[in-house]
Amino acid sequence: MARVDRRRRGEFAIIRRYFAPLAKDAPLAFDLTDDAAAIRPRAGHDLVVTTDAIAEGVHFLPNDPPEEIARKLLRVSVSDLAAKGARPLAYTLTTAFRRDLPERWIAAFARGLRTDQRRYGCTLIGGDTTAAPDALHLSATLWGEVPRGRMVRRAGARPGDIVWVTGTIGDGALGLLAATGRLPNLSPADRRALAGRYRRPEPRLALGLRLRDFAHAALDVSDGLAADLGHLAAASGVRVRIEAAAVPLSGAARRVIGREPKLFARALTGGDDYEVVFCTAKRDADAVRAAARATRTRVTPIGCVEKGAGVVILDGKGRALTLPGRGGYDHFAAPRAT
Amino acid sequence: MARVDRRRRGEFAIIRRYFAPLAKDAPLAFDLTDDAAAIRPRAGHDLVVTTDAIAEGVHFLPNDPPEEIARKLLRVSVSDLAAKGARPLAYTLTTAFRRDLPERWIAAFARGLRTDQRRYGCTLIGGDTTAAPDALHLSATLWGEVPRGRMVRRAGARPGDIVWVTGTIGDGALGLLAATGRLPNLSPADRRALAGRYRRPEPRLALGLRLRDFAHAALDVSDGLAADLGHLAAASGVRVRIEAAAVPLSGAARRVIGREPKLFARALTGGDDYEVVFCTAKRDADAVRAAARATRTRVTPIGCVEKGAGVVILDGKGRALTLPGRGGYDHFAAPRAT
Repeated sequence: MARVDRRRRGEFAIIRRYFAPLAKDAPLAFDLTDDAAAIRPRAGHDLVVTTDAIAEGVHFLPNDPPEEIARKLLRVSVSDLAAKGARPLAYTLTTAFRRDLPERWIAAFARGLRTDQRRYGCTLIGGDTTAAPDALHLSATLWGEVPRGRMVRRAGARPGDIVWVTGTIGDGALGLLAATGRLPNLSPADRRALAGRYRRPEPRLALGLRLRDFAHAALDVSDGLAADLGHLAAASGVRVRIEAAAVPLSGAARRVIGREPKLFARALTGGDDYEVVFCTAKRDADAVRAAARATRTRVTPIGCVEKGAGVVILDGKGRALTLPGRGGYDHFAAPRAT
Repeated sequence: MARVDRRRRGEFAIIRRYFAPLAKDAPLAFDLTDDAAAIRPRAGHDLVVTTDAIAEGVHFLPNDPPEEIARKLLRVSVSDLAAKGARPLAYTLTTAFRRDLPERWIAAFARGLRTDQRRYGCTLIGGDTTAAPDALHLSATLWGEVPRGRMVRRAGARPGDIVWVTGTIGDGALGLLAATGRLPNLSPADRRALAGRYRRPEPRLALGLRLRDFAHAALDVSDGLAADLGHLAAASGVRVRIEAAAVPLSGAARRVIGREPKLFARALTGGDDYEVVFCTAKRDADAVRAAARATRTRVTPIGCVEKGAGVVILDGKGRALTLPGRGGYDHFAAPRAT
């Protein structure tokens, strides 16, 4: 069925050589020599757990550098914790590597993990590795901690709240187009900027940890701004109204959309942004701006929360935009990127 | 690249319909409508975490019933917790389903999860689902709890200890041969028995929870008895000596090996047993037997722990057996099952 590689590059050797060093700072991970790891939560804290898979052709491209693929895998999960106000602690990894993958690929993948686990203060504590006949399959389960009961939920937005978003929206989706040669008129600098944002998202962890103090609801934008606002509105039982003109775009995204205006819809629905959308009371606006300054994070108010249901995105003349499809990335419905 | 199925069977709908009901007993899983779940550990307890992937053609066969595949996925992880003395609490799931998989397949898969999460007292709390172009990819991360510091380790076996094993060894590996038609002289009853043991392992949870009180070291047999004893010996810094004739075999396995003696080596090295190997002081032998009776679990002493390193398996004349290969299943070195 599959091409069988009989070189004796064993999974135990791979774990020992490349992954066990990533676990050395976690005494309860037992150097990955046990069947399980222990986690000893701090008193008065909840653990927050998130699981994310990244797929070839969707979240990364087959020829992306292995370091970047590893970092994206971790960052996608760190971004979830950031939006929940949780500090990363530890993660497990499930990998299915193709048998013909050179060992240097795995070495580079492990280097990428090391770089970002240091950056975000978390440690590998376990996992499972198998061989895959075909595409790479990668997933991670990441734990963080929050003071007990303080995880920021999707539910909790209240009519009258301001809706904020960090960073800029659409670079991930436009970056995928840029990286796959589907934006032919792009300057080299803009191509690099957008493809870089697709390959290496920037979880808003420093701000996220402060948002615990005033966000009524939050989530990270992974399925697309429109769809994720829909999730937040549904979970909170409210309507979200967004001013399209207020949605922050990078310079590169503005230039792309200036040339091809229909790509604005792609920016709002394409996903892979890993920015944080959050809702706060109006009276907390100054505190939000202070937290943003303190953490050097761009935040932009893009709309408000109302009674009702669903998401309305208004253009400059107050007309509701109609977005194609379901307004978000859906792994079962959407065509693959490549 | 992949066949694109544009039917609007979305991942959100699949999660809502099939997986959210599995999370309803976990209030901090928020009905799988959030990006993360919270876990509130009991005071004085550690969480024990294990991650396992199961692969088509290795741990299950493409045409296995989806209920059984789901149950095996959970049981493989429950077995790890059983060997660590940990009570299952919650799990997350990562699935990559082929786009052409009929929805009834996913429905049956979810039914299998429900059956076994009830059986083992754990609850789905999150996960990620994507589409795969090719084989199914399935992994689970399972949490359990133990009183603080009480996880049973691989390290800890001491010279003079008795080495015990639960149940019978080799049925999983012989069952894979039986299920794939490679044991032509098998009676229908033996074929059913062995294939059933391959498809549905029996985690030794009830006994495992009691082993906390006297096991110096333990692990579950997933890579093959010989290889897993090697892991235990290496982690404990000891030598393990096993009497081949003492290794418990099922009636079906005995008949298979009687006809084809070289399959005894397969029984010792084939993996997929999900029995527990554990080491205790000699003085605890009566307590082990009492725990086994109380939990209706077969336990067999198969050898002892000595000073030294490695694993020695002795035949009836006291000669060391030589096992083919590295003595265990290795995903990168072994040929696939189909």
